[in-house]
Amino acid sequence: MDTTLFFLFLIACSAAGATGAAFPPGAWYDTLRKPWFTPPDWAFPVAWTTIYLLISFAGARVAVVEGNAYALAFWAVQAGFSTLWTPLFFGLRLIRNSLFAMAPLWLAVLGCTVTHFQLDFWAGLAFVPYLAWVTVAAALNVAMWRLNPDVPPLRRS
Amino acid sequence: MDTTLFFLFLIACSAAGATGAAFPPGAWYDTLRKPWFTPPDWAFPVAWTTIYLLISFAGARVAVVEGNAYALAFWAVQAGFSTLWTPLFFGLRLIRNSLFAMAPLWLAVLGCTVTHFQLDFWAGLAFVPYLAWVTVAAALNVAMWRLNPDVPPLRRS
Repeated sequence: MDTTLFFLFLIACSAAGATGAAFPPGAWYDTLRKPWFTPPDWAFPVAWTTIYLLISFAGARVAVVEGNAYALAFWAVQAGFSTLWTPLFFGLRLIRNSLFAMAPLWLAVLGCTVTHFQLDFWAGLAFVPYLAWVTVAAALNVAMWRLNPDVPPLRRS
Repeated sequence: MDTTLFFLFLIACSAAGATGAAFPPGAWYDTLRKPWFTPPDWAFPVAWTTIYLLISFAGARVAVVEGNAYALAFWAVQAGFSTLWTPLFFGLRLIRNSLFAMAPLWLAVLGCTVTHFQLDFWAGLAFVPYLAWVTVAAALNVAMWRLNPDVPPLRRS
C-alpha cells in the first residue's frame, strides 16, 4: 500500500471528522427521544475513527488498481455526504431533512463496498464495517425523526 | 466520457452545493466589512455551478485513465473540504477558523489541477477556473478575517 495515498484519503476523511468536532451533539441531542438501539455516546468517535482508517486503506488499495473509476467516484461521493450530514443534523437540527444527506451517503457506501470488492477483496472487506455503521446511523436518523416529530430546526438569528 | 461517471462526480459536488442552500449568507454576511475584490453575490452560485460541471467532467475523464491514483485522491479531498467550509463560515460564523478548511481545500485543488494535467490536458484545464476561484475565495476569507476582527462566532443555544 502507498502510504502517501493512504494519508491523502485520511485527509479527505478528516473533513467529515472535523464536522463532529465543530458541531458536537451537546445538550440538544440529550433531550431527543432515542430508539432502543442507539449506541452509547463513546461508540461514535471510536466507530468513525476506525472507519476512516479502514476506508483510507481501502482507497489506497483500489487507487493503484486498473478499472477503479466507479470505486473512486463512489469514494468521493461518500466523502462529500459524510461531511454534509453532521452540519445538517447537529448544526441546523434538521432531524428529518438530514435524511437527504443520509440516503445518498448510504447508497454511496453500498456502491463503495460493491465496487471495492470487485477490485480487491481486502478493500471491499474494509468497507463492510462502514456499511454496517451507516445502516445503523440511517435507522437511527429515521427513528429519531419519528420519535421527535415536534422538535423544531434551529432558528438562526 | 462516461456519462454515468460524470453524474456520479456531480452528485459528489452536490453535497458541497447543498451547504450553500442550507447555510445561506443572509443578513449576517451583509454586515461584514469586505475587501474591494469581493465578487457580487450573484457570481457565487454561477461560479460554483460552472466549477461543479467542469470538475465532474474532469473526474470522469481521469477516472478511466491508468495511473489516476493521486488525481482521484485529491478529487476526494476537495469534495470533503469544499463541503466543510460553508458550515464553518456561514453556519458557525468562524471567520478565522474556517481557514482550517480553506487551506486544505486550496492545496487539494492545486493538487487536482497538477495531477489532472499530468493525465489529461482537458481534465487539467477544467480545474483551472476552480483553482482561480478558490484563490480568490481564500484571499476573501483572509481579508474578511482581518477586516472583521471583532465579529464573534455564532453562539448556539
